[in-house]
Amino acid sequence: MGRTSDARDKILEAAKVLIEQRGYSALGVAEICATAGVPKGSFYYFFESKQALALTVIDEHWAAQRAQWLAALDGPGDPLRRLRTLFEATEEVQRAGQRRSGVVVGCLFGNLALELSNQAEEIRTRLQEIFEAQIDLIERVVVEAKEAGLAGAGVDTREAARSIVAQIEGRVLLAKLLNDPTALDTLWRNSLDMLQATQVTH
Amino acid sequence: MGRTSDARDKILEAAKVLIEQRGYSALGVAEICATAGVPKGSFYYFFESKQALALTVIDEHWAAQRAQWLAALDGPGDPLRRLRTLFEATEEVQRAGQRRSGVVVGCLFGNLALELSNQAEEIRTRLQEIFEAQIDLIERVVVEAKEAGLAGAGVDTREAARSIVAQIEGRVLLAKLLNDPTALDTLWRNSLDMLQATQVTH
Repeated sequence: MGRTSDARDKILEAAKVLIEQRGYSALGVAEICATAGVPKGSFYYFFESKQALALTVIDEHWAAQRAQWLAALDGPGDPLRRLRTLFEATEEVQRAGQRRSGVVVGCLFGNLALELSNQAEEIRTRLQEIFEAQIDLIERVVVEAKEAGLAGAGVDTREAARSIVAQIEGRVLLAKLLNDPTALDTLWRNSLDMLQATQVTH
Repeated sequence: MGRTSDARDKILEAAKVLIEQRGYSALGVAEICATAGVPKGSFYYFFESKQALALTVIDEHWAAQRAQWLAALDGPGDPLRRLRTLFEATEEVQRAGQRRSGVVVGCLFGNLALELSNQAEEIRTRLQEIFEAQIDLIERVVVEAKEAGLAGAGVDTREAARSIVAQIEGRVLLAKLLNDPTALDTLWRNSLDMLQATQVTH
């Protein structure tokens, strides 16, 4: 039991690293198993297809990322300070990836959204749900900020949350392209602007 | 001469459509030639490699897009109105792609930036140059807006231009994921916020 779940974890970890490095389409099951150091035969014991594996990689990555987001957004400080904590954590994730692999790997969900949206309907649907969940988490804090008078009274909380998520994705794209996590430095300034909270300093 | 340049154009058009649909890594030269309806032997008469073809696709797409950007940003109206014209043109490009193919294809440069930044240094460099050129074009208009008192006096024009380009990429990602070009509707509102020009209505 210990050994079989080890093999599953090794496959998942290898798949995640390879998908981050090279995308999904260019990968084969044989290469994933070789990188994981498990026999190819065991792959289909755990996953019925490469797409089933990808969905599991996505779900596990979101479970871990969601916990980080909640730690920031439900943590100490006023709503805007918690948003800033989220951006700092996001930049640190990209810095850590760069220290480990030499390159900014970007956002797994953003990478797969652009690669697969028009090819794999089940993956598209799952990614849509994850981005909506991210927007939900941000919107909660934006609503709090608005109620506390920290965001402009005219702000559409849903659209502002959506814009902040879009800005994160766009900035992560630039960080990956430039291999420079400091491209994320301005997320805070951008968000204050989009929340019409320009006079606040944190 | 007419026939050979026809073949080159057919290869370029097929490559662009296939890269937009499925990305670069999953494509082979044989498939590109089959889609273009040209013999595989002629491919290497025009392009020394698949990467050389991709760079040509990128350059030709940017030449066409740059002309559209200039038409909007050097067109009639005050600086903010011209920025709005650019966003409207960007949304129309995605709507036209959706009418043609059934799906929002997204931004060729953003797609390739996420797919290839960490795999193909020459493509990364070219895409960096294109994004810097886009930021230059937007910044010119932001500077004009600031000089005319239409943007906040405290706005960092370079960072604001970079944020607007990031917002375009992030919103195009959502538009592709949702197969819904209206995800681009808020670019105008976002930009007014990031330029601290919230009181302006256009």
